[in-house]
Order: sequence, then structure tokens, then C-alpha cells
Amino acid sequence: MRLSYILLENGEKRVAFVRDNKFFTVNNEGLSCVFQDPVKVISAINSLKDDLDVVEVRPLKFLPAVIPRKVFLPAVNFRSHSQESSSPPPPEPYFFTKFGNAVIGNEDTILIPYNVKRADYEGEIGIVIGKRGKYIPKEKAMDYVFGFTVINDVSFRDYQFPERHPYGLNWVMGKALDTALPIGPWIVTKDEVKLPLRIRTRVNGNLVQDGTTEDMVFSIEELIAYISNGITLEPGDVISTGTPAGVAEFGGKKYLDDGDIVEVEVSGIGILRNYVKKEKFI
Amino acid sequence: MRLSYILLENGEKRVAFVRDNKFFTVNNEGLSCVFQDPVKVISAINSLKDDLDVVEVRPLKFLPAVIPRKVFLPAVNFRSHSQESSSPPPPEPYFFTKFGNAVIGNEDTILIPYNVKRADYEGEIGIVIGKRGKYIPKEKAMDYVFGFTVINDVSFRDYQFPERHPYGLNWVMGKALDTALPIGPWIVTKDEVKLPLRIRTRVNGNLVQDGTTEDMVFSIEELIAYISNGITLEPGDVISTGTPAGVAEFGGKKYLDDGDIVEVEVSGIGILRNYVKKEKFI
Repeated sequence: MRLSYILLENGEKRVAFVRDNKFFTVNNEGLSCVFQDPVKVISAINSLKDDLDVVEVRPLKFLPAVIPRKVFLPAVNFRSHSQESSSPPPPEPYFFTKFGNAVIGNEDTILIPYNVKRADYEGEIGIVIGKRGKYIPKEKAMDYVFGFTVINDVSFRDYQFPERHPYGLNWVMGKALDTALPIGPWIVTKDEVKLPLRIRTRVNGNLVQDGTTEDMVFSIEELIAYISNGITLEPGDVISTGTPAGVAEFGGKKYLDDGDIVEVEVSGIGILRNYVKKEKFI
Repeated sequence: MRLSYILLENGEKRVAFVRDNKFFTVNNEGLSCVFQDPVKVISAINSLKDDLDVVEVRPLKFLPAVIPRKVFLPAVNFRSHSQESSSPPPPEPYFFTKFGNAVIGNEDTILIPYNVKRADYEGEIGIVIGKRGKYIPKEKAMDYVFGFTVINDVSFRDYQFPERHPYGLNWVMGKALDTALPIGPWIVTKDEVKLPLRIRTRVNGNLVQDGTTEDMVFSIEELIAYISNGITLEPGDVISTGTPAGVAEFGGKKYLDDGDIVEVEVSGIGILRNYVKKEKFI
């Protein structure tokens, strides 16, 4: 199933299902406005019956496919990105995170603060958790996956790489600014997804990243098992795959700037398109 | 005002006010169960009138005083802790974070994973944001503060200091495990708080930390201004002060272990008491 959260022309927000490029929603009060609470939407979806009252709708725009309570993004988890950045892969998964202020949907605008010069894209795949668990063994990790979505891990290199900091890279200010986590346009449930997946990123139509999940350092199963070793995973949490080579900072490409259009495409999942706007000095 | 979120004997969860060591709640449907949404509780509290129907209640237990959507904890923000850890203070604030899975209330139990040997305490003060803002100037930062609460920044040093990681300390696994963010027992609104504040931590009754906010490297105003430089702060977000000297890892004190009782006391705010339980091998 291909699931989205959309804004209708009458102003309503609804969970929608995509079939043959048409959008359908269920006339069920319990399913509207539930994407704010991923636990509820996933259990609602799981309990859907075939005899529900389904109607076709026209989306005015896509809202974020999920607003994760916890999101884990691994640093340097593709060998090609490790090479381009001259960063050896970490011996165990190394995560940073973002907050709700960063989450935006498909066709929304990425804001670059007026004082940031090195805003960057990172095309990634979001693994959406569907079941609560802790100390999950690698062998059972896929049981906890609900589906997959597309992510752009927008990064602010001016903040992220401050050579002055003795504590490591500045993950919070380098990664978690407003609008820095586009997610969508939908979640594809895992039964419809065949691994490996290909990730391609285009800026103004130019291909800048092109990699596959076969290049990952730690597998999806290994990432889930590692995090759950002390952190309880819950439905709606999102774990990202990391990004392949080709980012602006290391790949010799241009940084994001006012007026750019950035698209992340994941094979079999979809295309996440966002516009870029540079804030004026305030 | 001294605000808490409590469990009553009949199983109801209510926002409560503390006066003369007695607890009162308001017979107002809109105020129950709202601490899950800090935006709602703070606007509800702000609109309270004197003629409300107030009744005395008996708390069965304290729930977390606030479940922050975003929480920012600064690394090495007390000079005394900088000295004991031989870590020079960062040239600008450096933050890590935790998630909802870490938040527990007063008298709740801190769980130490079976494979963690160096679990540690860090007594801190939580600054609770009361107003939405971005690019907040230092001079206006206190306008955005709703009040103060007590925090224990429980840390897992085995994970936090893995000399093998080239990307910096392991902030997620070293800080964000389940139950690692006790908060409470209440929030004191800023009009009743006089700075500087004294922080003391006791383990099984023995004083292990004793510092004041005068020892902070970056002031409350500087922390707020820095974060808001790209991240929109919202009501219910929490920023911590950082911790003074005396943690187990650097202060030569014992690590937390099964059966310990750890208390963080902040002058004029309150005492946050938690029990420690070591998980059995699973």
C-alpha cells in the first residue's frame, strides 16, 4: 500500500491511499488528522477492512508523510560517501537526529538561514518503524519495519564542520535547523518494496547523487538492532539509511541556493521535490 | 506558580498546582491530560482566571512535569565540570539531545541496560520555553522562558566515550537510552524564581555535586539565543543548563547501580528523586 497524508481543497487533512495515480480516502472519522500521531495511524491502517467506504479525492498538497517522534540518521553509512569525504566508516553505527521543526512535506520550501553559505542536500531512504520493540535481534529486525519513504537530509556545513569544537561535529546546528527534513511524498508498505533500492538526487534537473542500498556500510537490520540496544523503538519512529556520494560539500557540486529545485528519487518508492529559499537578513 | 502533572488515586491524570505543600486542581475538562501537549497546557495555564473552581487533590504519583518535543542539553557548560573532565569549554554552545523514550517522572525508576557498567548522573536545571520564537536576541531571551524544573541527565559513559569513533562522542547511545531523562517534580514559573540557583546531587544521601548557575560558561540567555539562530523554539521545549563538577566518571565517585537512590535538588525549585535498577541479562 502507498500511504500519504494530504490537504484537500476544502481544507481537510486526510490519510490517503494511492492506486493507479489516483488518490482515495476512507470515510472514517478516526483516520483524519491522525498522522500527527504515528502510533494511531499505523494501528488504524493495520485494522483496515476491504469493505470500507472508499472515495476518490484530489490532493491540494502533500503534508509530511510522517512526523516522527524519534528520527535516527547515520553518519557516513555509504562506502561511496565515505570515500568522497575521506571519512572512514565508523566501527559501529553513529547517529545524529532532527526534531519536528525540521519536518516538511513534498513541494514544501527548504529555508536557508541568511548567514548560511554551505547548505547541502543528502538523498536518503526513511525506514518507518511499525511495531514497538527493544533489544531486537538482527534476524527479526524486518518484522519491525512498516514501510519506506524518501528523505532529504538537508545539512548546513558552515555549522556542521566547526574545526574549533573539541567534542565532535556540530550535529544539532549542522543538521536540525527548521525545514531540514523533507519527508514524502508517501510511505510504501514493505510488502510492496523490493531491495536493493536506488537513490538519485537531482538539483535543477542535474543528477548529483546516484547510489544503491547495496553500498550501505551497516544494513537496515543492523541499524535497527543497534539502536534498540537501549532505546525502545515505537511505531512512527524513522531510521534513515544515510546518503551515497555526490553531496555538494565533498562532491564538488554547487551548494543549495535561492530558487533551486531539489529532487530525491528512490526506485519503487517515489520522488520527493522541494524548493529552496534563502532567508533575507532579518 | 508551582505546576505539576499528577496521577490521582482514581487513575485520572491532572495538571496540579502546589500551594503550602497541598495540591490543587481545576475542575476544567480542558486542563486534564494536556501535559502531553505542552503548547496546550501553557496556553491553558496562561488563561487561568482567579474565579476558577479549584479543588484539593492527593497525588498518587508525579508524572513527568513536561514531555518536551525538543530538548537541548549543552556539553561542558559549567567551569567546574570543564576542569574535572579536562575538557576546555566549547567556543560556542554545543548541544546533544534525548527523546520521549528517556522522559520519566519523580520517583520513577532509572533502568541501566544489563551491559552498561558506567551509568552516571548529572544534576541540571531545565529551562522550559513558554513562547514561540526564532532569531531571539539575547536581551529578549528571558521573555521566552515559562519556568524552571529539575533534570537528571543520566549518561552511559561506556557508549559516550568510544575512543574508536572519528566523528566525536557518541551522544545518542551515550545519552538517549530509555529512562535517561528524569524531569520534575514540578515546573516553577519564572516570576517565582530568583537566580542564581544552586544545584546539588546526592546518591544514597551522599552529596556528590554542588554548584551554582554562576559557574555556567554560557548563560541561559546565550543558550536560547544560540539555538534559536535557525531552530524555532516552541512552548514546552526544554533547554538544560549543563551540570557542575562531581559526576562519577570524572569526580572519582561511584557509578549508579542497582538499588541506588539519586536525588537532584535545585534551590527554590525542588528535589527530583529516582530509583536505580540494573536490567538483568535478557
